Amino acid sequence: MQNVQNLKTHLADALYLQYASAVLGWDQQTYMPPGGVAARAEQLATLSKLAHELFVSDETGRLLEEAEAEVAGMGYDSNDAALVRVVRHDYDLATRVPTSLVAEIARTTSQAHEIWANAREDSDFAAFAPTLEKIIDLMRQKAEALGYEDRLYDALLDEYEPHMKTADVERLFIELREELVPFVAAIFDRLDAVDDTIMHMNYDIDQQTEFGLRVIEQLGYDMTRGRQDRAVHPFTTNFSINDVRITTRYREDYMPSALFGSIHEAGHAMYEQGSDPSLEGTFLAGGTSLGVHESQSRLWENIVGRSRGFWQHFYPDLQRRYPDQLGLVNLDAFYKAINAVSRSLIRVEADEVTYNLHIMLRFEMENDLLEGKLAVNDAPDAWNAKMEQYMGITPPSDKDGILQDVHWSSGLMGYFPTYSLGNFLSVQFWNKALEEVPSIPGDIAQGNFAPLLEWLQTNIYVHGRKYWPAELAERVTGEPMQVRSFLRYLKDKFTDIYDL
Amino acid sequence: MQNVQNLKTHLADALYLQYASAVLGWDQQTYMPPGGVAARAEQLATLSKLAHELFVSDETGRLLEEAEAEVAGMGYDSNDAALVRVVRHDYDLATRVPTSLVAEIARTTSQAHEIWANAREDSDFAAFAPTLEKIIDLMRQKAEALGYEDRLYDALLDEYEPHMKTADVERLFIELREELVPFVAAIFDRLDAVDDTIMHMNYDIDQQTEFGLRVIEQLGYDMTRGRQDRAVHPFTTNFSINDVRITTRYREDYMPSALFGSIHEAGHAMYEQGSDPSLEGTFLAGGTSLGVHESQSRLWENIVGRSRGFWQHFYPDLQRRYPDQLGLVNLDAFYKAINAVSRSLIRVEADEVTYNLHIMLRFEMENDLLEGKLAVNDAPDAWNAKMEQYMGITPPSDKDGILQDVHWSSGLMGYFPTYSLGNFLSVQFWNKALEEVPSIPGDIAQGNFAPLLEWLQTNIYVHGRKYWPAELAERVTGEPMQVRSFLRYLKDKFTDIYDL
Repeated sequence: MQNVQNLKTHLADALYLQYASAVLGWDQQTYMPPGGVAARAEQLATLSKLAHELFVSDETGRLLEEAEAEVAGMGYDSNDAALVRVVRHDYDLATRVPTSLVAEIARTTSQAHEIWANAREDSDFAAFAPTLEKIIDLMRQKAEALGYEDRLYDALLDEYEPHMKTADVERLFIELREELVPFVAAIFDRLDAVDDTIMHMNYDIDQQTEFGLRVIEQLGYDMTRGRQDRAVHPFTTNFSINDVRITTRYREDYMPSALFGSIHEAGHAMYEQGSDPSLEGTFLAGGTSLGVHESQSRLWENIVGRSRGFWQHFYPDLQRRYPDQLGLVNLDAFYKAINAVSRSLIRVEADEVTYNLHIMLRFEMENDLLEGKLAVNDAPDAWNAKMEQYMGITPPSDKDGILQDVHWSSGLMGYFPTYSLGNFLSVQFWNKALEEVPSIPGDIAQGNFAPLLEWLQTNIYVHGRKYWPAELAERVTGEPMQVRSFLRYLKDKFTDIYDL
Repeated sequence: MQNVQNLKTHLADALYLQYASAVLGWDQQTYMPPGGVAARAEQLATLSKLAHELFVSDETGRLLEEAEAEVAGMGYDSNDAALVRVVRHDYDLATRVPTSLVAEIARTTSQAHEIWANAREDSDFAAFAPTLEKIIDLMRQKAEALGYEDRLYDALLDEYEPHMKTADVERLFIELREELVPFVAAIFDRLDAVDDTIMHMNYDIDQQTEFGLRVIEQLGYDMTRGRQDRAVHPFTTNFSINDVRITTRYREDYMPSALFGSIHEAGHAMYEQGSDPSLEGTFLAGGTSLGVHESQSRLWENIVGRSRGFWQHFYPDLQRRYPDQLGLVNLDAFYKAINAVSRSLIRVEADEVTYNLHIMLRFEMENDLLEGKLAVNDAPDAWNAKMEQYMGITPPSDKDGILQDVHWSSGLMGYFPTYSLGNFLSVQFWNKALEEVPSIPGDIAQGNFAPLLEWLQTNIYVHGRKYWPAELAERVTGEPMQVRSFLRYLKDKFTDIYDL
């Protein structure tokens, strides 16, 4: 496999430049003193320019063709064949969009950020509308450059969820909507059944830190190959299979923020740490898509971390740490409080039940805007109408409506649905794990997470980017991505919690 | 100045790659989890290879020649002319040594490190001798490739102390030796006059940290453009004029270690932070040589930090923090204890008086080894004879003698004398500052370090690498580098402390 080896060697520099960028980005969000801001932007620009130039070079194209010839006769499952597939995918994405368009998107979105932030602050959509119009036009141009067979949106989605089709996502959301909208309405009628005021008391941050670290280490996040630091926006980043870091933020007046945030990021991190060691230093290391990544963060955060069994094990320790706040709160009341549903207008604050309705709304609007079925000026009304239709609530202002997310101003269109795909997949994977290892729920209630981690490791993590997300779902669960299992899971869990 | 601008733009990528390497190096020594080691080495290798390729490219040579033509008629003091001079110096250094020799030095020294570490552990010089022989031979080849007029050593010294000559260093050391050897002998006869056992009590590390940070902030280290973290080996690093970081290490059983280490590194850092803002993003930012850098770290650490006036201000606070250890120790006894002289065999533990004798010994031996006047096999005896001659002590083993330093195994020859040049210069600069701002000692005793920092800033820091070290010394002090002032300073200070 000399040609594949040559391709790997050539691409290693580009990969290491990307990892170096990631280290600089981590530092910027954790420890960099304020004075470092301007120089850091220059350094990151240089690293990303050099990595891009190396990656899209004619040399990469030539080596890739030679490697494709070499792996032509090989089995689909070979690592070498997979590497060549993945590099071809990334290379086409990176080379099809003309440099001039890439530059214009970068210029527009870098200015757009402040315009959006000010418009949100003032709840003034009109101030953001011309910029959004321009960004949508650039996204259309990008989609045309990337190419697609069916829908404009396919081209954009592919960057975050390779080979996933818009029509498939639409089918999933239609099924979700039919069952979830009435279910949410039923819960909203019974919101009084769960009281989460205990979550909003004062929780000492040192104790939160200690408890959170104990939890993620026990789940299986390997701290000899990772670490947790504080940052304004929690994230996971990695510079190797063996150096995968997470960050969290603490709120003294709302304990779930840091705890479930840490478990969420640890879920991403365990996925990254689990790539087969032979994939180190190649573009096959890491997660295969944003959706599959989110399936892991949400599996650990919600299915595991917000389960009764999990807290059978951990609750006594938490009570000991916070006797004044939790000493008189029994396990059942605590379990319900961490699963409280609310009529939130804001996606990032949404609970497990309503979260995907927020995503569906965005996915539908992105498609309508891109395809010209919805005018930018009509978008706030469309947003509010959908909120009323799906959740029975109308945002009092655009600040809490269409202006709430940073994504569009950053040119991230096609990104939102991956959150929901992750939620759907998380239950499919979980159900399969339980089918094959029925002891898992009992193990979790004993504080033993190794059987679950090992199953995920063997069936998902080890493959890195070797299989496209839909392939991986099929291989692991024996069926395509579907929403049925997720709906069943939600209904079982919340029918019980809200005594419906 | 279009040509100079083109040169700057071209070199910015190389500079930013170097800064990115420095960030990765900082992370490696502060927060990186153990798992990250292998990947980090690969990332650093890529960054340094790409930075080197960019810097030594024919494009740099061509742009440099064009810029030289452009600045030919300009004044010596112009920033543009200075930039071109400095880049020419660095470019010649980087291009004259053949790539094959660079690679062989890298290969040899990377293997040498472990061989040396084992030999030191076993105090077995014979195990290191063949490697040292090889390294000396490579250093000779490097010197020949770099070129020199008078001495082989000139070529090596120039990398760390540009335009400094071996013969000049020799003259300084001869003068030092004549006066210092008998002075040290006189102190050694009276070692009982100072008792430093109070330094070896138990000092709580949180209090050390808080006190140390208070000190360096008050000296003028700008923490909005820097920070202090813990590391095994203290160092200063920078990624911009506005992001200059230091590290320190704490010993619970020896308080001076972290405190004076922090002041030392803060001295380096204030020099780096003080470059004129217009030098940001160019090869003129930063310190002009290792010697001038050391003059600043030692000025702040020794001349300021180990002075009576400094402790008139800070001692009451330190006593409050450590009432059990220092409550009954008066200022005079404390001042003497932090200035205690000892018969140490180890350079890194040496006090202000004996330190430069350790350096002189190494400088003499490096020259003799390079010039073939001393055979490697005879080196341990030569080392021990010099220790006896200069300090009246003989190492009981090579572990505490010729094998103690990492430098030679790393291919760092020509580096040691910069420590002494820094010590000599520190007193020259200090004397000049006092001549021009006589209030400085009184200000320090009041805890006001601004007048000193401002003088250093205006006269030294602001210039960055604009002037070569000897030029800078002349411009600032009106005389060449000399050892007379340093000897006077030592004799005054320690005649008093040891009541000679």
